[in-house]
Amino acid sequence: MKAEPRASDLSGPSRARDRGSIRRANLALVLRMLRDEGPLSRARIATGTGLPKPTVTSLVAELVGLGLAGEGPTRREGAVGRPGTLVRIDGRHICGIGVEISTSYVHVLALTLGGEVAFEHRTAVAVGDAGADAVLDLTARAIARCTAALGRAGARAVGLTVAVPGVVDTRAGAVRYAPALGWRDVAVTAGLLDRLGAAALPLTVENDAKLGAVAEHAHGRIPDMVCITGERGIGAGIISGGRLLRGSAGFAGEVGHMPLDPERRPCVCGRAGCWETMVGLDAILRLAADADDEVHDQGVALERRLAVLHDRADAGDVRTREALERVADALGLGIALLADVLNPGRVVLGGYFTHIGDLILDRVREVVAERVMAPDGGGCEVALSRLGFTAAARGGAHLALGAVYQDPGAVG
Amino acid sequence: MKAEPRASDLSGPSRARDRGSIRRANLALVLRMLRDEGPLSRARIATGTGLPKPTVTSLVAELVGLGLAGEGPTRREGAVGRPGTLVRIDGRHICGIGVEISTSYVHVLALTLGGEVAFEHRTAVAVGDAGADAVLDLTARAIARCTAALGRAGARAVGLTVAVPGVVDTRAGAVRYAPALGWRDVAVTAGLLDRLGAAALPLTVENDAKLGAVAEHAHGRIPDMVCITGERGIGAGIISGGRLLRGSAGFAGEVGHMPLDPERRPCVCGRAGCWETMVGLDAILRLAADADDEVHDQGVALERRLAVLHDRADAGDVRTREALERVADALGLGIALLADVLNPGRVVLGGYFTHIGDLILDRVREVVAERVMAPDGGGCEVALSRLGFTAAARGGAHLALGAVYQDPGAVG
Repeated sequence: MKAEPRASDLSGPSRARDRGSIRRANLALVLRMLRDEGPLSRARIATGTGLPKPTVTSLVAELVGLGLAGEGPTRREGAVGRPGTLVRIDGRHICGIGVEISTSYVHVLALTLGGEVAFEHRTAVAVGDAGADAVLDLTARAIARCTAALGRAGARAVGLTVAVPGVVDTRAGAVRYAPALGWRDVAVTAGLLDRLGAAALPLTVENDAKLGAVAEHAHGRIPDMVCITGERGIGAGIISGGRLLRGSAGFAGEVGHMPLDPERRPCVCGRAGCWETMVGLDAILRLAADADDEVHDQGVALERRLAVLHDRADAGDVRTREALERVADALGLGIALLADVLNPGRVVLGGYFTHIGDLILDRVREVVAERVMAPDGGGCEVALSRLGFTAAARGGAHLALGAVYQDPGAVG
Repeated sequence: MKAEPRASDLSGPSRARDRGSIRRANLALVLRMLRDEGPLSRARIATGTGLPKPTVTSLVAELVGLGLAGEGPTRREGAVGRPGTLVRIDGRHICGIGVEISTSYVHVLALTLGGEVAFEHRTAVAVGDAGADAVLDLTARAIARCTAALGRAGARAVGLTVAVPGVVDTRAGAVRYAPALGWRDVAVTAGLLDRLGAAALPLTVENDAKLGAVAEHAHGRIPDMVCITGERGIGAGIISGGRLLRGSAGFAGEVGHMPLDPERRPCVCGRAGCWETMVGLDAILRLAADADDEVHDQGVALERRLAVLHDRADAGDVRTREALERVADALGLGIALLADVLNPGRVVLGGYFTHIGDLILDRVREVVAERVMAPDGGGCEVALSRLGFTAAARGGAHLALGAVYQDPGAVG
């Protein structure tokens, strides 16, 4: 029986290094440094990693051979010295695929190692009505089209992550409970692997808010972040110490049902006073307009309806402005709580919040600054996501590409 | 300028390995494996780490030479094969020191690498009345007595951590705000280093709840935990993925002011409805007894007063039982929130909760099981701390010993 040293360790991960694994680890180290700091000279890589220059030269040659790095422009570093040729991430032919299954669409997006979008396609579908089997059929076809398109372009995918708005059992590759989709206990990994057959890739299923956080982290590399997705439900992805916080069974980030409303309005979960009854999409629409108002018309795209609200607020409509103010106050209340618990350097608002963000952000920041216990709000800044509705799929693609940064030689 | 690869990385820490550092890393790996799994044969260490047996033999010899490991009892592994001599952690002469500055005492505790208490002393002092300078004088003297005692026993301390109930700026080594002590902006590290002079050790200041969590983690090695300390104020230490969650500026774990009480009772923080007004020590005493009742007499030790409450509950006193029930409900409410956000495998209740724990635990567990969104409470179990009032000092000692597990050769 093999006794694995446990990962749970305040002193950091335990992994043995032999000479073969050292080279692989150093290869990964150089690749991550290029990802995090952009194009660098070999001399700079040597200084930054502490590796001897000949080792760096040899590692860079291997990365170039694998197609993961390339020679960039020549740049003079500092005021003196000769110009150095820069090394940069290449990896045009290596992709990660992210698939978001949302209430109204299946979105497939492939990112190259360099961060370019290599493929993107969205299929409109009423997921709740279609049923899980039909949605998995459709998703498998969309994935197959994506991998075929990548193949024609001379690229290949190293892995795939499926994002779902709900409680996901990542180990089992199953969705436990996704009320927005009407799903309960859907075996996504097994279902897709069956359908994809020989074309199957390493496949992970993860909660959409968590993957949104992975995408935000990839863009800012802030080590401690909370990313809040606002739809009808409210979810969070938490990055802690540069790592996605999953918790003991992968269920972390369930922030929508924090009991924060003293008015104790009933929630879809069966309880009362949940945060999402104060800041979810239904709350803003209910506060801003009567039931027969056009903004409640589900036949109209959400972006359009939010634009109507935005126009009304711009025109000074009192009810709309008061509704936004109330949502901003409640948003600030919950964010301050999360900031007290987690002390993030940044909280990113995604989903529907991005469409009304300019109207609420100042107020949210005020409430957070006022409520957080730590001095200066613990340094927490509140920002809007710039990734829009692609965040979850992008995060899935980034997660899939993570394998390359762990062991470039195995997948290059 | 040296460009350090950033620690913020979803792919794990980036550190270059050369041949010198490999040996150090493998030495640390073997030592951590012995800590986590107890006495092991060299063969088992080789299997577990993936290192060649001759390398393991040489690493073990080095650890024994440093006094960090020793030969344990002989044990037959499995049904067949010859008996193997076991290797175990020794390190009797290597200690970490933890110092807790609490409202009513300064507690100094030294742990050996093997986890034995090598020194322990508590000085009663009304910290709030004495003033920070006098308390640092007293603390420095207590530390000097501890190191002298260790020296006489042939041991030495590799580091020291000071635990304080408040908001700590760990980087600056200063307490920003500790209302329980009446401290604001006290430079603990500088103050102690001045007083200790030549006898000074590597010194860290940390929040007491965080160190309590380090101690709980050291005993159970549950990778995802929340440890709640209950005194007049409520604090939490969070372990996530086997690491202490500090947040971007070290302020994580401020759970006492989550706005959970619809009755909005005023809090010492100036707000209303904070969790600690529902579950803190003042709440249970207020609910259980009138102002002139003996349980409010601060001249009597807290343990005694809680014992009085316990006796009344045992005798079936209705008011006491109702008070306990209300605190249990409110405790469950907040724990469920934290379980939704963090999905810990275990929540540990420390501080005053340990004295009434048997009276509230069942009810707390019921509320948590009922409220947590994830299936089966996300696997979260609620338990009472067994470390009592020594948790913070113990955690400080463990944190100080962490340096040995990072680089055994440097401190052995």
